[in-house]
Amino acid sequence: MPKPLGHYAQSYRENLTKSVIPFWLNHSLDRECGGYFTCMDRDGSVYDPRKYMWPQARQVWMFARLFNQFDRREEYLDAATLGLDFIRKYGRDEQGRVYFSLTREGSPFFFQRKPYGAVFFVMALIEYAIATGEDRYLDEAKAMFADTVRWLDDAALLGRPNHAGQTAVSVLANHMVLAFMVVELMAACDDGSYRPYVRRAIDGIVQHLHDGIFLEHVATDGFDLRQYPEGRLFNPGHSIECAWFLLHLLRIEPNEEHQRIALDVIEQTLVRGWDQQYGGLTYFVDIDGNPPAQLEAPMKLWWPCTEALYALVLAHTLTGEARFADWLHRVHEYTWSHFVDPEHGEWFGYLDREGRLTHTLKGSAYKGCFHVPRCLLMCVQEIERQG
Amino acid sequence: MPKPLGHYAQSYRENLTKSVIPFWLNHSLDRECGGYFTCMDRDGSVYDPRKYMWPQARQVWMFARLFNQFDRREEYLDAATLGLDFIRKYGRDEQGRVYFSLTREGSPFFFQRKPYGAVFFVMALIEYAIATGEDRYLDEAKAMFADTVRWLDDAALLGRPNHAGQTAVSVLANHMVLAFMVVELMAACDDGSYRPYVRRAIDGIVQHLHDGIFLEHVATDGFDLRQYPEGRLFNPGHSIECAWFLLHLLRIEPNEEHQRIALDVIEQTLVRGWDQQYGGLTYFVDIDGNPPAQLEAPMKLWWPCTEALYALVLAHTLTGEARFADWLHRVHEYTWSHFVDPEHGEWFGYLDREGRLTHTLKGSAYKGCFHVPRCLLMCVQEIERQG
Repeated sequence: MPKPLGHYAQSYRENLTKSVIPFWLNHSLDRECGGYFTCMDRDGSVYDPRKYMWPQARQVWMFARLFNQFDRREEYLDAATLGLDFIRKYGRDEQGRVYFSLTREGSPFFFQRKPYGAVFFVMALIEYAIATGEDRYLDEAKAMFADTVRWLDDAALLGRPNHAGQTAVSVLANHMVLAFMVVELMAACDDGSYRPYVRRAIDGIVQHLHDGIFLEHVATDGFDLRQYPEGRLFNPGHSIECAWFLLHLLRIEPNEEHQRIALDVIEQTLVRGWDQQYGGLTYFVDIDGNPPAQLEAPMKLWWPCTEALYALVLAHTLTGEARFADWLHRVHEYTWSHFVDPEHGEWFGYLDREGRLTHTLKGSAYKGCFHVPRCLLMCVQEIERQG
Repeated sequence: MPKPLGHYAQSYRENLTKSVIPFWLNHSLDRECGGYFTCMDRDGSVYDPRKYMWPQARQVWMFARLFNQFDRREEYLDAATLGLDFIRKYGRDEQGRVYFSLTREGSPFFFQRKPYGAVFFVMALIEYAIATGEDRYLDEAKAMFADTVRWLDDAALLGRPNHAGQTAVSVLANHMVLAFMVVELMAACDDGSYRPYVRRAIDGIVQHLHDGIFLEHVATDGFDLRQYPEGRLFNPGHSIECAWFLLHLLRIEPNEEHQRIALDVIEQTLVRGWDQQYGGLTYFVDIDGNPPAQLEAPMKLWWPCTEALYALVLAHTLTGEARFADWLHRVHEYTWSHFVDPEHGEWFGYLDREGRLTHTLKGSAYKGCFHVPRCLLMCVQEIERQG
């Protein structure tokens, strides 16, 4: 039975302030070397001291965002500063490309030929510029945004060569991260120059629409990509995350048809991605029923649920439609009973198909202080905005 | 209750000739474009027509080996020729580096910055040279072996740069594939020049001994690698596979201490890698009990079982010790009841921790005509050699 939205807002605010934020403040700050530990087991104990750039940059963004929009506590800004100073000092090579991981002290350890580390770095700079009011961080973000767009357009610039047998493919995640950057850039400095990127992100995402969901990859040269597993790949977490990003983009470029698409994708992603037998959103689905390439495909991860929760809150406040309230109740019940850890704080991240915990970790090279607090914060803000 | 070895030999011969070989002969040969389909679902239907170089080269080796040592059927040599011609024509770049994948027709699709595709290419050339008696394939194998050893020693030659924060690490798989190549090279042409590599492979493998098992990575510069997950990583499949490769190397360089190590590793890998609750060999284990980095860590895969079966058969025929017969019975029962597919032939590959099938595929970019038939063939040969 769906509850009033205020009920969820209360749970989310409590979880955010009493469980999630304290976990990261208590365990992740490396006061000795700077930056954040993110590879932590259930109780916050560190099982790998290296500094992974995705969660470093995302945590800077998150604490700066909490400071800017939730509660102007100095400890939030201090936490953001600890990470930003570290990644600005150590996180990039001489060409400005962002490493994937560093040693605890900041020496480069691994470079991944992907543009996403740079995306999160840009986000960190924008939000930190807002928090401090210092334009130099915004200028740095703008310059890095220009590089990052080039890397999104051509991974060969990051050392991943193109081969003759490859075809031209559009990657859903690339449009999503463009949306992420440009919505924030426009909020920080709307001089109109970023508006074309908003249209580009909208067109990019909508191009992936297929049977009511967003597919991960579509061909842009007419090639029949569906003969390859990547052309049949449905990642429900990404599909629903892109739907709420599209709704954010439409605040800048309103369009009824696009809004209808976004709302329907939220519902259809759940209809097709939710495991009818065991609950939870399946990690990877082959839309033609072939075996997925990823071994972890049937698992249930925390972040598709966080993205679904916020998408449903947003869709419900926008439309008041019961279909979204019903799904919100269902996703919330699964999430709260499977991922939340009342003992040590934060959420678990990884379950097998049946919903049993496979990994006790709270953080890793990918899971950090990001999806959970972002979801909780945005849900609280959206619900309380409606009053 | 363990059965006489002859009982297993009979099962394995029957499974090899009536189920496994027919699956690959019936479904994988691409008579139109050359090479092999390897991405096949349960019934042999192709879900990705691309040509992945690991299973291409391994299948050439397997069919040439079957022709050379099991049954001199023309169809085995024909199958090997179909693959060898394809990979020789399309599988390498202008520097001789081996692609990871090609389109169905042979255009390069993806290059992985790892040396293992080249390893299997060398193996394919050696075994095909023996099958045809043509020295030019052996000469090509020798030249490619020299390149491959350089790539194993320095991945930077494959485009994976070294970074300042990295430490010097020995990778178990690299010693194993060196053993694989050099044992076969010496069988094909023992002019003495490869004997130093035998000693090097032995020393390399033994260096990974830790508490009775072979760890995946050890530091070679004194760094405390155990603070990182890779330094605590125990891959039971690799550990037991390396143990039987070590026993093969010891036929060339006999040493009682090394033999004792290899035999004890076979037992200890099972003691520490076998899931006491649900059976099967766990894919990845953190020896200090931290959460493993790999999402697929708790899964049960087919190939650790094939490697355990052959290691146990070999250990038992070498020593006659009951500990190996008992484990052989246990691993055999699990393997036969979980992986073998009596309906469509070949074996399934992927189960969750509890032993439920997660993927219906019979082949992929990694699973091909290799671990299963190699295990069955070597077990039959070893048992029947004992008479």
